Amino acid sequence: MKLFDVTTVDNVLEIMKNKFKKDIMSEKVSLIDSLNRYISDDIKSNINVPHFRKSLVDGYSVLFNDVFLASESNPVCLNKIDESYMGKICNTLLEEETCVYTPTGAMVPKNSQGVVMIEYCEVLNEKEILIQNSIAFNENIVEVGEDIKENEVLYEKGHLINERDIGVLAGSNIKEIDVYEKLTVGIISTGDEILDISEDIKEAKIKDINAYILYGQLKNINLNPIIYPSAKDNLNDIINLIKKALNECDIILISGGSSVGKKDETLKAIESFENSEVLVEGIAIKPGKPTIIANICNKLVMGLPGHPLSCAFVIEAIFKQYIKSLYNIDKEEYTLCEFTYNYHKAKGREEYLGVNIGKKDNKLVCVPIFSKSSTIKQFAKCDGYIKIDRDLEGIKNGDIVKVYTF
Amino acid sequence: MKLFDVTTVDNVLEIMKNKFKKDIMSEKVSLIDSLNRYISDDIKSNINVPHFRKSLVDGYSVLFNDVFLASESNPVCLNKIDESYMGKICNTLLEEETCVYTPTGAMVPKNSQGVVMIEYCEVLNEKEILIQNSIAFNENIVEVGEDIKENEVLYEKGHLINERDIGVLAGSNIKEIDVYEKLTVGIISTGDEILDISEDIKEAKIKDINAYILYGQLKNINLNPIIYPSAKDNLNDIINLIKKALNECDIILISGGSSVGKKDETLKAIESFENSEVLVEGIAIKPGKPTIIANICNKLVMGLPGHPLSCAFVIEAIFKQYIKSLYNIDKEEYTLCEFTYNYHKAKGREEYLGVNIGKKDNKLVCVPIFSKSSTIKQFAKCDGYIKIDRDLEGIKNGDIVKVYTF
Repeated sequence: MKLFDVTTVDNVLEIMKNKFKKDIMSEKVSLIDSLNRYISDDIKSNINVPHFRKSLVDGYSVLFNDVFLASESNPVCLNKIDESYMGKICNTLLEEETCVYTPTGAMVPKNSQGVVMIEYCEVLNEKEILIQNSIAFNENIVEVGEDIKENEVLYEKGHLINERDIGVLAGSNIKEIDVYEKLTVGIISTGDEILDISEDIKEAKIKDINAYILYGQLKNINLNPIIYPSAKDNLNDIINLIKKALNECDIILISGGSSVGKKDETLKAIESFENSEVLVEGIAIKPGKPTIIANICNKLVMGLPGHPLSCAFVIEAIFKQYIKSLYNIDKEEYTLCEFTYNYHKAKGREEYLGVNIGKKDNKLVCVPIFSKSSTIKQFAKCDGYIKIDRDLEGIKNGDIVKVYTF
Repeated sequence: MKLFDVTTVDNVLEIMKNKFKKDIMSEKVSLIDSLNRYISDDIKSNINVPHFRKSLVDGYSVLFNDVFLASESNPVCLNKIDESYMGKICNTLLEEETCVYTPTGAMVPKNSQGVVMIEYCEVLNEKEILIQNSIAFNENIVEVGEDIKENEVLYEKGHLINERDIGVLAGSNIKEIDVYEKLTVGIISTGDEILDISEDIKEAKIKDINAYILYGQLKNINLNPIIYPSAKDNLNDIINLIKKALNECDIILISGGSSVGKKDETLKAIESFENSEVLVEGIAIKPGKPTIIANICNKLVMGLPGHPLSCAFVIEAIFKQYIKSLYNIDKEEYTLCEFTYNYHKAKGREEYLGVNIGKKDNKLVCVPIFSKSSTIKQFAKCDGYIKIDRDLEGIKNGDIVKVYTF
C-alpha cells in the first residue's frame, strides 16, 4: 500500500497558483447580462452623477440671503421668475428676491443656494411666493458628481456585479461590461458502482452524486461545467475521457478512484499522458485527504475523493480558492457565530465541518452536523461550514468561529 | 394637492395576497436545470439511499462474536471466503470464523455485523486474515435507507434547490423536477427626464437607474423581467405601454411618477382602464411612501417611487414578500448584528435602512449608510438592510438587530 506524502492546504494552493497562473479571457456583455458576473477590469464612470446640480425636493430655488431669516411668523415674499422642467436645462439666474420652481430631480438655476420645500411655501399668485422657512446653505441640492465622479473607479477587477450595481452602472452611462469568460470544466466520475442519471438503480450500484454537486458548485461561481458519461474503473475508459475533456475543457475534475483501497486507476490514467506531472498526491485536509493535483498538457487536472462530502469540501477549500485567485478576489466572506459544542480534532491537518446556524439569547450560534462520510442529506441542508486550522486541536464550546455560509 | 391616505405595510401585504392569490404554474425541468429554482411540489425520494447495506471503509466484513475480543496482542485468524466487488451484489453469507473483503462503498454480506478496517488486518495468505482489533456491533456499515428513506419528503414546496441539493436528488434517483414557472414582470419607467440605456446623456436628463435595479432584483428571485422603453410623462404613452405589458406580462411595475409634486400621470393612466381599481395609494414606509397598488384586469400593477433607493426598498419590503407568499415560503433569513449608532425615527411608519456589517471584538456590528435619497452608490455597496418596526422610535447604540443581507 502506498503511503500518501500529504501536502498542506496552503502549499497546495501555492503550487496551483504558480503552475496554473492563467489569465482568464474577458468578454463584453450588455449591462443586464453582467448581473452576477465577475468583472475582468476596473470600471470607471463615464460621467459625473448627477451631471447637473439638481433639486432633492419639490420646492423653490432661492438665494440664501433672501430666506435665511424666513419663518412662519416672519415669511418672505419672493418673485417667481421661472419654472425648471424635468430633463430640461434651466438657464435662468436668480436675482435678489426672486425664486424658481424646481421639482424633485430637476436642474436648479446655476446660482441657486438652496431649495425651500413646497410644504413651507405659500403660492400667493402666479408671480408671488411666500417663503415660511429658512434653509441651510445649498440645502436640498445635489451637487454635480456628488453621487459619482467622472472617472471614479466604481468597481475593481474581480467584483461580482449585484442587482444594485447594474443600476449604478446604468446611471453612470455604461452600456457594456467586460466580464471574465466562463472557464469550461470537465467533470468525469469514475467507479464500477456509478450509474449515470439516465440509468436505473440495479445491483449494488449507486447514482452519481458527485458530478451533480460539482456541477452546482461550479455553475454558482460562473464556470461552465460539462458532465461526461461516467467511466468505470477501466484504465482505457478513463484515459479516453480525459483525452476528450482535454480537447474541450480548460480544467478537468475526476471524482472517485483516488482512495488507496479502491482500484486506483485515476493516477495511472494521468501518468499515462506524456506531458503529465503529478504535483500533489494527498492533502492534509479532512475530509478530502486522497486528492490528486496534476498537470496534463498545462491543464489543471484534479483527482477528487469519491465521498460526496469530501469531494464538495475539497472544491470549497481548494478549487474555489484557486478560481478566486484567477478572478483577483482576495475578500473572504463569513459570519461570526458562537460554537456550542466541544469538538476535538487531530493536529496536523486542516479540518472542515458543516454547521447549522441558530439563534440563542440574541446571538448567532452554530453546531456541527454529524453524519457518516458517505451520507449527504445533512450536508445538503446545513447552513455553512467552518474551517479549523491545522495547528488547532479542536474548538471549545463558547468559542467564536467564522462560518462560511452556503 | 392630494394627501395620501397611507396604508401600513402589513395591510398592504394582506390586500395583495387576497387580491392576487394566484397559483403559479409549474414546469418540469431536468435535474441540472433545477439549480437555483423554487420547487412547486414536495419532492419525495424514489428509493432508499443506500438501497443496500454497504461498507464505510476498506476492510473485512465479519461476525461480531468472532472479533469482539480481538486486539493487537490477541489477534483472531479468520478465513477469507469471498471478496465483494464495487457495484456487484454480494450473495455470500458469513459463517463462524470467516470474513469477506469489502472495499468502501461495496455491499456487505447480508449477515455482516461490522467491517474491520484494513489498517487492523494482516493478510497472512490468500485465505487467512489476522484481525487485530475489535469493532462495535454493525460498525462501519451504512444501513439500507440510513441516509434517505424511500418516500421520505426530501424538500418541501417552495424550497430553493441549492448546489448540494441536486446531488441529493441525483442520489435519490430523481431525474426531473417540478419548479415554479418564472412569472413575467413588465418594467415601465416614466418621466420626461429619463434616458434609455442606448441614449446619450443630454440636457438635464438622467439615465434610467430603476429599471436596471428592478431587473436585477426580479431576476435574482426567479422572475422573468422585461424592460420596456421608458415613457415620458405623457398619459397616452403610459397607457399604451401598460396595454402592451398587460398582454405580455403577469405583473406590471411602473417606476417614477408616483410622487405628489411631479406630473402624476401614472395614477391617471391606471384609472383610465375600465377594469381597474386602485387598492393602495401611499404606504406607511420610509423610504417608499408614494407607492400605488392597483388591479388592472386582475393583474397586479404597482406604481413605484422614482428615487432608486425608495424603489428598491419597496421591492424588498413589499413585492418580494408577496412573491414569497406565492412560492409558499415563510422562512425569514437574516443575521444578527450589534447596531453601533443611535438612530431616531418617527413613529407610525416602518423604516428601512441600508447597513454595512463589520467585525469588532469578535462580534458582528452594523452601521447605517447615510446618503441622500437620490444617490445610489452607497446603497449598491452596502451589505444589507434592517427594518425598524412601525411603533419604534429608533434604535439605540448596542441594540441587537436583524440584518437582511443582500
